[in-house]
Amino acid sequence: MYNLLKGKKGIIFGALDEHSIAWKTAERVHEEGGVFVLTNAPAALRMGNIDALAQKTDSQVVAADATSVADLELLVDQSMEILGGKIDFVLHSIGMSVNVRKGNAYIDQNYDFTEKGWNVSAVSFHKVMQVLYKKDAMNQWGSIIALSYIAAQRVFPDYNDMADNKAFLESVARSFGYFFGKDKKVRVNTISQSPTPTKAGQGVKGFDAFISFSEKMAPLGNASALDCANYIVVMFSDLTQKVTLQNLYNDGGFSYTGVSQEVIETLTK
Amino acid sequence: MYNLLKGKKGIIFGALDEHSIAWKTAERVHEEGGVFVLTNAPAALRMGNIDALAQKTDSQVVAADATSVADLELLVDQSMEILGGKIDFVLHSIGMSVNVRKGNAYIDQNYDFTEKGWNVSAVSFHKVMQVLYKKDAMNQWGSIIALSYIAAQRVFPDYNDMADNKAFLESVARSFGYFFGKDKKVRVNTISQSPTPTKAGQGVKGFDAFISFSEKMAPLGNASALDCANYIVVMFSDLTQKVTLQNLYNDGGFSYTGVSQEVIETLTK
Amino acid sequence: MYNLLKGKKGIIFGALDEHSIAWKTAERVHEEGGVFVLTNAPAALRMGNIDALAQKTDSQVVAADATSVADLELLVDQSMEILGGKIDFVLHSIGMSVNVRKGNAYIDQNYDFTEKGWNVSAVSFHKVMQVLYKKDAMNQWGSIIALSYIAAQRVFPDYNDMADNKAFLESVARSFGYFFGKDKKVRVNTISQSPTPTKAGQGVKGFDAFISFSEKMAPLGNASALDCANYIVVMFSDLTQKVTLQNLYNDGGFSYTGVSQEVIETLTK
Amino acid sequence: MYNLLKGKKGIIFGALDEHSIAWKTAERVHEEGGVFVLTNAPAALRMGNIDALAQKTDSQVVAADATSVADLELLVDQSMEILGGKIDFVLHSIGMSVNVRKGNAYIDQNYDFTEKGWNVSAVSFHKVMQVLYKKDAMNQWGSIIALSYIAAQRVFPDYNDMADNKAFLESVARSFGYFFGKDKKVRVNTISQSPTPTKAGQGVKGFDAFISFSEKMAPLGNASALDCANYIVVMFSDLTQKVTLQNLYNDGGFSYTGVSQEVIETLTK
Repeated sequence: MYNLLKGKKGIIFGALDEHSIAWKTAERVHEEGGVFVLTNAPAALRMGNIDALAQKTDSQVVAADATSVADLELLVDQSMEILGGKIDFVLHSIGMSVNVRKGNAYIDQNYDFTEKGWNVSAVSFHKVMQVLYKKDAMNQWGSIIALSYIAAQRVFPDYNDMADNKAFLESVARSFGYFFGKDKKVRVNTISQSPTPTKAGQGVKGFDAFISFSEKMAPLGNASALDCANYIVVMFSDLTQKVTLQNLYNDGGFSYTGVSQEVIETLTK
Repeated sequence: MYNLLKGKKGIIFGALDEHSIAWKTAERVHEEGGVFVLTNAPAALRMGNIDALAQKTDSQVVAADATSVADLELLVDQSMEILGGKIDFVLHSIGMSVNVRKGNAYIDQNYDFTEKGWNVSAVSFHKVMQVLYKKDAMNQWGSIIALSYIAAQRVFPDYNDMADNKAFLESVARSFGYFFGKDKKVRVNTISQSPTPTKAGQGVKGFDAFISFSEKMAPLGNASALDCANYIVVMFSDLTQKVTLQNLYNDGGFSYTGVSQEVIETLTK
Repeated sequence: MYNLLKGKKGIIFGALDEHSIAWKTAERVHEEGGVFVLTNAPAALRMGNIDALAQKTDSQVVAADATSVADLELLVDQSMEILGGKIDFVLHSIGMSVNVRKGNAYIDQNYDFTEKGWNVSAVSFHKVMQVLYKKDAMNQWGSIIALSYIAAQRVFPDYNDMADNKAFLESVARSFGYFFGKDKKVRVNTISQSPTPTKAGQGVKGFDAFISFSEKMAPLGNASALDCANYIVVMFSDLTQKVTLQNLYNDGGFSYTGVSQEVIETLTK
Repeated sequence: MYNLLKGKKGIIFGALDEHSIAWKTAERVHEEGGVFVLTNAPAALRMGNIDALAQKTDSQVVAADATSVADLELLVDQSMEILGGKIDFVLHSIGMSVNVRKGNAYIDQNYDFTEKGWNVSAVSFHKVMQVLYKKDAMNQWGSIIALSYIAAQRVFPDYNDMADNKAFLESVARSFGYFFGKDKKVRVNTISQSPTPTKAGQGVKGFDAFISFSEKMAPLGNASALDCANYIVVMFSDLTQKVTLQNLYNDGGFSYTGVSQEVIETLTK
């Protein structure tokens, strides 16, 4: 619509189906003139219908397990080849808790599952950046974004160990962002998004009640996947070059609302 | 450049000279297709050369003392008449400490000066919004921004009582943002900008040493007035509709850097 | 009970009746061996029954309008005379919004009322410290505390303009705390307390619904006035000498709880 | 000195030598009337001279690898037997980064080392609490504390991947604190301490420059290991029963100081 990303090249992780934030982001980036490679884990590629998205956005799909440094190295090499140069933007939209999937309460973790979830959801972001950094694969003033959630700051009991993973992820954004900024003039941020009815979101227990609470609290209501895609476009553009090391809330005001009139009224009915 | 603000109407407070953030913002908003009224206090209008800016951006200038509700009511009425409809965006770039001007230390305030500075720098933002709210002068999904500084969160001794004023200002953004969001679907945010060598900034004691410290700390260096104008454009656009009640750091990463290698090295030389 | 404050001298602002946090603090400080002067505005002294507290705690009462520098100067002089030396601890428990009392909505402020409330609730804290600082009236490792509320960070719509006043107050604690720390080795903090059914608290609209929401959210339930008094004792003691410039939450975990199971369940019934 | 912990029973992890915060804490807890079991990893027990501490404080030492759930289960069982009942307080003072030890830069991590450091420094805290929770081993109004550092919030480049581990640790404190609070009335907090010249601290590159920067910034100077021990005593006592889910800064005001006059002057010399 605005050509905000004309001439920019990127990699988008985590598009599964049309509900995914990464999916909407790919569509919006395409509309704004950006070109990119789509990637996801082999299993996720089989599950979703990413080929439809690739076709729609003139993109190629490269399979990569984001916990594998070797896979990520291949992905970055191939992406630069496909796109014809260095990378300007990266979206990391990856998260999964095995404890949640298996129904383990936060106070009854299986620590192998904890490690697996942490590795997939948080360490993968470090790996992606370390590979990009070492290969000097990012253009100056490039932009790297990962998706987070406010459970990194405050307790939402059903969000389980993903809260701790998101806290780690946000710290990785700051820590790596420092070096990527100083050494390569690349910015790194996380976006803390409203609960969004994606495949991943729906895995969380009591997710519907939760979305409704959040909607009642936020002065502007929940941000949708499209709202998030729009915000990501802006953060990829040249208009936000000095925004880095931040966790940016895209949540209709939820994070700074202590309580809304609506919630108080519902509770006192 | 991108037509991000095509068809949008606004009011820009505080453009004084070409170093002002509000000045750069006016230029950038004009380039992006937005139309607006420029306003400042009568004394400031005499001091600066706002007519040059008005000419360059096809804008009209309306004088208004932002501490006067009557002036603000006139301003809003006239703006809607000039622009032919309701308002989509507002920039509040107003701040001044009489204690700083008179050289009073933070621990030796004259409380009449404290009150004057608070009124000009912080309450004026509430007044602007209250007038807009009562007149129902904002379009849905409009965006209101005020400029802040990280001294609202952490102590910078020479920033003096402006720190307390900015803390109040940011709280006003949240408090009013709640009602403006719920009732009118308008978002309200503050941008916490790097120290910027504007007329206002230069009034602060030791400002040069301070800009240089900040530059050494921030992984991407200080954000310029133009960087800030770009970020404001983005926050006025339709791509950030669910971002509200936030204090957004536009500072090259300064706010989340505890110390930089460069600062440590300079200190230990 | 523990003699934590043996030999320490102080000033306690704001004890009105036995529900006041300042009242409970006076009782607890007395039990811990501290001696102090009680003070409040002349009108408040007439309203409450502070003489009973004075008798119980072997204290003297000195009337002072905390917005009057002259009154505060007299108070500090008299307190040092009564107590026989410099001051070790100060509690500022003062807050009042005229807009709230008059039933003005946040979006419909009378700005004379706004100024009055700010002056009483926030500037008074600066004045108290400025008088103490200029008179060099604090002992090294002394401790100054003001009471705040989480509305300084997040919106609670009925808390009205007190939110902005508390944000200013917390900023004053940081700003003055810097100078009091560097120059006099005195610490300054605010305590952000659970909503407490005091006279002041009960003035807030919908206060009961609000206390009940907070109780449902906080993992340990709301902190009582006595809990707060205990925490203040600790912050006055020699065991917390390096804690300064902080806003300390005493709220049963409310501030870091995004939502509780109980609230979700009540909302989805 | 005050009998603040008379009759209370606890477990103290991580005392190595007389510079350790855990060591000082053990001494202070003993002085305040608390009884406890000392524990550390077998290798650490061989390195330090914990027996001297045990003798001085009438404590027993139980070896336990805090990454081993089996070891922790034994530790908790034995501790309850030794102490004759449930636990009132726990100090987790454990942290180690293999990447730091091996000299790997943050942008050049060995991910096996990353996992090891995370497991030791952060997951161990979850394990300790899960074992205590499942065994119902904590008394009501008990208090659990882990030590953290401000690198969890802001970047200190040499702190390396410990920053991310501390962010995870603090999140674990909040997440587990919610359930421990609701279900058992136990509070969980972290203390974010000034850089302290302990064995662990000294492993960090450029640690001396760093301590000196921190000392120059903090209005009250750095908090010592003894200051920290005093603060921990307070947090173990009955006077802070409603403080939970917090990260408490014990740092002389460092965390809320943007820059000090001293740092600015040194930089501009």
